[in-house]
Amino acid sequence: MVPVDRVQENKGGEQRRMVDITRDKPIKVAVRVVVPVRDHPKFNFVGKLLGPKGNSLKRLQEDTMCKMAVLGRGSMKDRHKEEELRASGDPKFQHLSEELHVEISAFATPAEAHARIAYALAEVRRFLVPTNNPVRNTAIGYPEKRPHDTRIQLFGWRVKPIPPRSYVNERCRNGTSKS
Amino acid sequence: MVPVDRVQENKGGEQRRMVDITRDKPIKVAVRVVVPVRDHPKFNFVGKLLGPKGNSLKRLQEDTMCKMAVLGRGSMKDRHKEEELRASGDPKFQHLSEELHVEISAFATPAEAHARIAYALAEVRRFLVPTNNPVRNTAIGYPEKRPHDTRIQLFGWRVKPIPPRSYVNERCRNGTSKS
Repeated sequence: MVPVDRVQENKGGEQRRMVDITRDKPIKVAVRVVVPVRDHPKFNFVGKLLGPKGNSLKRLQEDTMCKMAVLGRGSMKDRHKEEELRASGDPKFQHLSEELHVEISAFATPAEAHARIAYALAEVRRFLVPTNNPVRNTAIGYPEKRPHDTRIQLFGWRVKPIPPRSYVNERCRNGTSKS
Repeated sequence: MVPVDRVQENKGGEQRRMVDITRDKPIKVAVRVVVPVRDHPKFNFVGKLLGPKGNSLKRLQEDTMCKMAVLGRGSMKDRHKEEELRASGDPKFQHLSEELHVEISAFATPAEAHARIAYALAEVRRFLVPTNNPVRNTAIGYPEKRPHDTRIQLFGWRVKPIPPRSYVNERCRNGTSKS
């Protein structure tokens, strides 16, 4: 018998932990989203993702209740420093040899962790589409600002994530009390 | 540079593929949920999960748009057959040496796949809680039948999955048109 949470290897080389949903034990769910630099080699995705003083990514993390990090080749501002760290062989900087990507992770009960990741994937998508006119971004660089209660249309379903109260209170001044 | 979709090993032995969310390429997301046979050794979870003629699991799969399979030690009705297959060493029956679990998988665009898994985890939970009175189950063995528009309360958020039209039409006769 295999204990819960023991990581296992299956035939496809795929790895799946067993989760315990009756105890609501939190798990970490992580996805890595490739930044489409091949399709748009000239667009400054890192700048769009981070925003002024990193505020866009910071707000995106708060909104989605996920941790996010921009990693991979081209993620550092100082290219010489990046090259140095890549060459260092330190496992901490191993990501610098990979494609530019956003690492998104959620630590919560299994159902909630996957729901957060789903929402984060829908939200981060807007940052991965190059905008012709960067002036359209808001003051803090967050593109296409939407009211917080906009429904995310997923293929078969609509998922309406309602953020925690602290967040809602902060936004209530916009006057959109009804959904 | 690592090509997209190449599976990688990171420091924690954890494995993460890179997903492409700008192209809406479908991915498979799978989780394995342990059945709490240790906590409730006498309860017939497999019977509850499958229901008469497997109808409960069938309906659960339709509702959540996920594939589900009951696997592991004790998942087969014929214990002698199960022992035989376990001893056969066939990789196809390797799961029989593992704990009893439900494998849930979704094949969809990344955001939708995770949303489906989130919903499926919330739904399957009801089947993993032993009921004292199995008579309370409905005719097809589906426990605690709820209107389709019930909101799933996750910790920080509420997620309201609205099933595809085919499903909604089928349920409209209940007369609950408003949420």
